[in-house]
Amino acid sequence: MVKWAPLYTKMDFISDLIAGVTLGLTIVPQSIAYASLARLPAEIGLYSACTGGFLYVLFGTIRQVSIGPTSLMSLLTLQYIGNVPPEYMLHYLCLLTFLCGVVELLMGFLRLGFLTEIISTPVTSGFTSASSIIIIVSQIRHILGISYKSKNTKDDIYHLFEHFHEFRYGDTILGIFCIIILLSLRQFKNISCKNKTLKKLCWFISISRNAAVVCSSCFVAYYIESSGLKIPFKLTPNVTAGIPSPKLPSFGIYEGNKTISFFEMTEQLGSGFIIIPIVAVLINVSIAKAFATDGITDATQEMLTLSFCNIFASCFNSMPICGAFTRSAVSNASGVRTPFSNFYSALITILALTFLTPWFRYIPKATLAAVLIAAVLVLIDFEIVTVLWKFCRRDLIIVILTLILCLYFGIEIGLLIGVLCNLFHLLYLWARPKINCEKRKNEYGEYLVITPDLGLFFLGTDYLYMFLAKTARDNDKNLPVSVNCCYFKGMDYTAIKSLSMISRDFESRNQQLIFFNVCDFIIKLYKNSGCTNIQFCAIHENVNEYLFNKEINFTRSVTVPIIDTELQEIKYEVKNNEIEDKPLLNENEKNERLLKE
Amino acid sequence: MVKWAPLYTKMDFISDLIAGVTLGLTIVPQSIAYASLARLPAEIGLYSACTGGFLYVLFGTIRQVSIGPTSLMSLLTLQYIGNVPPEYMLHYLCLLTFLCGVVELLMGFLRLGFLTEIISTPVTSGFTSASSIIIIVSQIRHILGISYKSKNTKDDIYHLFEHFHEFRYGDTILGIFCIIILLSLRQFKNISCKNKTLKKLCWFISISRNAAVVCSSCFVAYYIESSGLKIPFKLTPNVTAGIPSPKLPSFGIYEGNKTISFFEMTEQLGSGFIIIPIVAVLINVSIAKAFATDGITDATQEMLTLSFCNIFASCFNSMPICGAFTRSAVSNASGVRTPFSNFYSALITILALTFLTPWFRYIPKATLAAVLIAAVLVLIDFEIVTVLWKFCRRDLIIVILTLILCLYFGIEIGLLIGVLCNLFHLLYLWARPKINCEKRKNEYGEYLVITPDLGLFFLGTDYLYMFLAKTARDNDKNLPVSVNCCYFKGMDYTAIKSLSMISRDFESRNQQLIFFNVCDFIIKLYKNSGCTNIQFCAIHENVNEYLFNKEINFTRSVTVPIIDTELQEIKYEVKNNEIEDKPLLNENEKNERLLKE
Repeated sequence: MVKWAPLYTKMDFISDLIAGVTLGLTIVPQSIAYASLARLPAEIGLYSACTGGFLYVLFGTIRQVSIGPTSLMSLLTLQYIGNVPPEYMLHYLCLLTFLCGVVELLMGFLRLGFLTEIISTPVTSGFTSASSIIIIVSQIRHILGISYKSKNTKDDIYHLFEHFHEFRYGDTILGIFCIIILLSLRQFKNISCKNKTLKKLCWFISISRNAAVVCSSCFVAYYIESSGLKIPFKLTPNVTAGIPSPKLPSFGIYEGNKTISFFEMTEQLGSGFIIIPIVAVLINVSIAKAFATDGITDATQEMLTLSFCNIFASCFNSMPICGAFTRSAVSNASGVRTPFSNFYSALITILALTFLTPWFRYIPKATLAAVLIAAVLVLIDFEIVTVLWKFCRRDLIIVILTLILCLYFGIEIGLLIGVLCNLFHLLYLWARPKINCEKRKNEYGEYLVITPDLGLFFLGTDYLYMFLAKTARDNDKNLPVSVNCCYFKGMDYTAIKSLSMISRDFESRNQQLIFFNVCDFIIKLYKNSGCTNIQFCAIHENVNEYLFNKEINFTRSVTVPIIDTELQEIKYEVKNNEIEDKPLLNENEKNERLLKE
Repeated sequence: MVKWAPLYTKMDFISDLIAGVTLGLTIVPQSIAYASLARLPAEIGLYSACTGGFLYVLFGTIRQVSIGPTSLMSLLTLQYIGNVPPEYMLHYLCLLTFLCGVVELLMGFLRLGFLTEIISTPVTSGFTSASSIIIIVSQIRHILGISYKSKNTKDDIYHLFEHFHEFRYGDTILGIFCIIILLSLRQFKNISCKNKTLKKLCWFISISRNAAVVCSSCFVAYYIESSGLKIPFKLTPNVTAGIPSPKLPSFGIYEGNKTISFFEMTEQLGSGFIIIPIVAVLINVSIAKAFATDGITDATQEMLTLSFCNIFASCFNSMPICGAFTRSAVSNASGVRTPFSNFYSALITILALTFLTPWFRYIPKATLAAVLIAAVLVLIDFEIVTVLWKFCRRDLIIVILTLILCLYFGIEIGLLIGVLCNLFHLLYLWARPKINCEKRKNEYGEYLVITPDLGLFFLGTDYLYMFLAKTARDNDKNLPVSVNCCYFKGMDYTAIKSLSMISRDFESRNQQLIFFNVCDFIIKLYKNSGCTNIQFCAIHENVNEYLFNKEINFTRSVTVPIIDTELQEIKYEVKNNEIEDKPLLNENEKNERLLKE
């Protein structure tokens, strides 16, 4: 908690102030836009932007994180409380935010942060792109100035075509114009010019583009109204000024003769208070990984912080909050030094809530839609498709699958199936290890060396069993077979039983079968397994003894166990001894080893 | 198909005949018992026993398999059609058998036999033991001669206590006596005596104990009845003689004003026609593994055979069938030579259906319950608990978990969660690889060698990232770090991105980080990934160059790549060359390698 405070310098103060103010210029218009995305009043977005910020100053660990409403949180909020009757909306919203906080608290205490590990980059990419597309499709109606009710993206697309002829010139022109301006201003920060002040100015214009576009649109609307003309585009409804007095969220609704219990409310929220916290933690961890160069993020602390922020925010009519990736990039580029910058941006939000609310009703809906579309357009990951096409088609399939499923069946289903497919591949590697098979020859005769590249647990056991049976059948029946177990990570009961059975089969044919390079702990396990007919040996050299019943000839045949740590030792031995004459294991050691087995 | 036929000898004929007749003596009483377990008329069990057998002769590959009704199939059948109104029972039963056949056909064509691989020995053990306990609990009522209706095991136990005082002396004494006789006769085959004929006789008595007990009980019942006394125990209902004429199963029921569509019927059958085929295939594969010493089982062929048998059987009012483990053991012990033995046992069943049916009504219910209990009692796996306690506690937990869940929530839930827990462990190994960390020293200085034992896909990536960050923080900031990638099985996009980020962090601290022992295909992947800041090198020697910017001193420092196949080659080189003077890679090769990277 506030680890940065004791070392806080004047330079830190100035840097944070600049970053905080820049952030404020982004967060105010974005919050109003994100609220409209979740079909909530604009002030809810602003409450969400300021309440979390104050707490993040106290508990946050990642300086770049700008906590508040985000497009993903808004989209997920809409998905889970979109169908609630409008009069109860606020109750459900606060409960959702509160429950998200509680689940994050649980995740923190139970150290469930690892849950975010199961969501790989391709799944995240597909999921983010799908969310962006869903948001864009949902906002086109505001750009076109048409209205309809819809439940999901399929509905949206259907209604867009159905109502397309109703589009209004005013909204459409303003909306498209705003998008063009926003996308153009975004490129300003890349302008290279030698004058440093000019470059700084370009950068500042680029960063504050949302505020600039929203203010200009407001001014245009105000000017038209004060000229006595009819405003040709739809405006935002009135915004309530000030911050609401804090109160705990309602655990059940009892109004008049209508009673909705806590359980009915949570049932309505569905899996929302599980999915939203996982996504929130995932985003914060991603931000930490992307910007934190010291590389150390205390995931548990971060989850607890997120939890406090959400629980606190839920008392102020806020929607679920987390770090925003785009704003964190702004914060990073503005030279933020500590999480204190969140204080300034929160302050600016409060100032806006206090003094600017009369002006908010002049914000055109089309402008907000443009802000949203411009913000999420850059989140659609086109680049990953070309990279993965060259890098790994399997990952590309995961991206596309997640994307399509998210669009078609909804975000949770897409996320879930994407993750499952991804995990399936890891299980597949256990089930179908690459098995290398080669014929070797030494002074005693020929033998087969079979090397599975992973093993040996129940999933890969049958496959190895079949492989050994097939190999034995395809080759000479007298050819001894050795299995190199250097890549075995352990062995379970299914595997031991199976090896015992295949050993029995080989025995019944009088064919030699030996497992070598078996680590000590597997040999120990084997002794406790109740099976007795498997030939295990720790090092490669003993293979000769078992396969050909010959004495080991150590001369010049350097024993090289596979495990690298042992390898290093032997390397030193090779350096320090006369390897021609002295075996690496002397007779005593050798006998000891043989006795053990 | 009938691969054994061309080589069929007279000895084969005699062996199969003996085995088939022995099998018949077991299969007839068992089939009646299994039918009563599934609360079906006795003739259904006998139909199931003979129809499959004829087809298995044609398509079967495993000589030991005795196809027909089994305790597990009966239990599962009861679970899925237990709630069907009695008048429609037969329709549902035939449809279930037919659908099981169709699903097995699909599994065969789509080569889904691997699905049985995900069921490990501990899960099978827990599942089998649970089934045995469920069967025993369900049969105690017949031993006690009480009757009640129940839906599941919990119900059974509750009713047993509730109705315990209603127990009837006749049934109880007969039932317990039969169980004792059956368990004692079972031990007969282990009697060691020198007289071979006597030993053979003991063995035969042991094998035909079911038939003996059932016949004796029948005779007692007949004798009591013919003496004009009231029979003191419950008897089996009348059995219809003969084989029903074949007809396709009903895909929908249209009787009078009652209409049940195909979909309503399948809905009632639930997941039965998925679970039953998987269990059936699993059992047949287990039998193959346990008894077939040539080790080669064509799983696909076996699935197709099972499918044909079930589809064929469904036309003769049969329940789902598969190989029976206990009967297969009998078959194996009787010296079976080909699947033709199934023909004789099927013939005996038909003879029984034709001539013995008037006698079947004398079979006491308590005797059938005793046959069932004695058959499944030996399937409860007590031994595995002590073995796994010593061998692997994790597997023991899986056994107990599966057992408890099967008993409490039903067989499918238990099986599913058992399998998921088992798979979770394999995923955990990816997520939390063992990472070995050691400080090494060579002539240029000290450096860290970090060796993760598995990797590197998305699941383990974050863990390695945190480990490297922590290691770098805990040690001297100038200490070069090298990561040994010899156990990496591949690399996905998440991993490459993460390695790029950690490389960037190290770079920003001016600390050296290198990944060595990277296989060629990962290096190729990396070149296509769009990341450029990761230091990969194929062999260990180059580590010095990167970490200390020094020329490699090859003298006596033998390069030993980790992959075993390369190792062998080098071993030969060591044998054939003067290793003191000649480096393993000459200057040209070395330069080539450096240019490539």
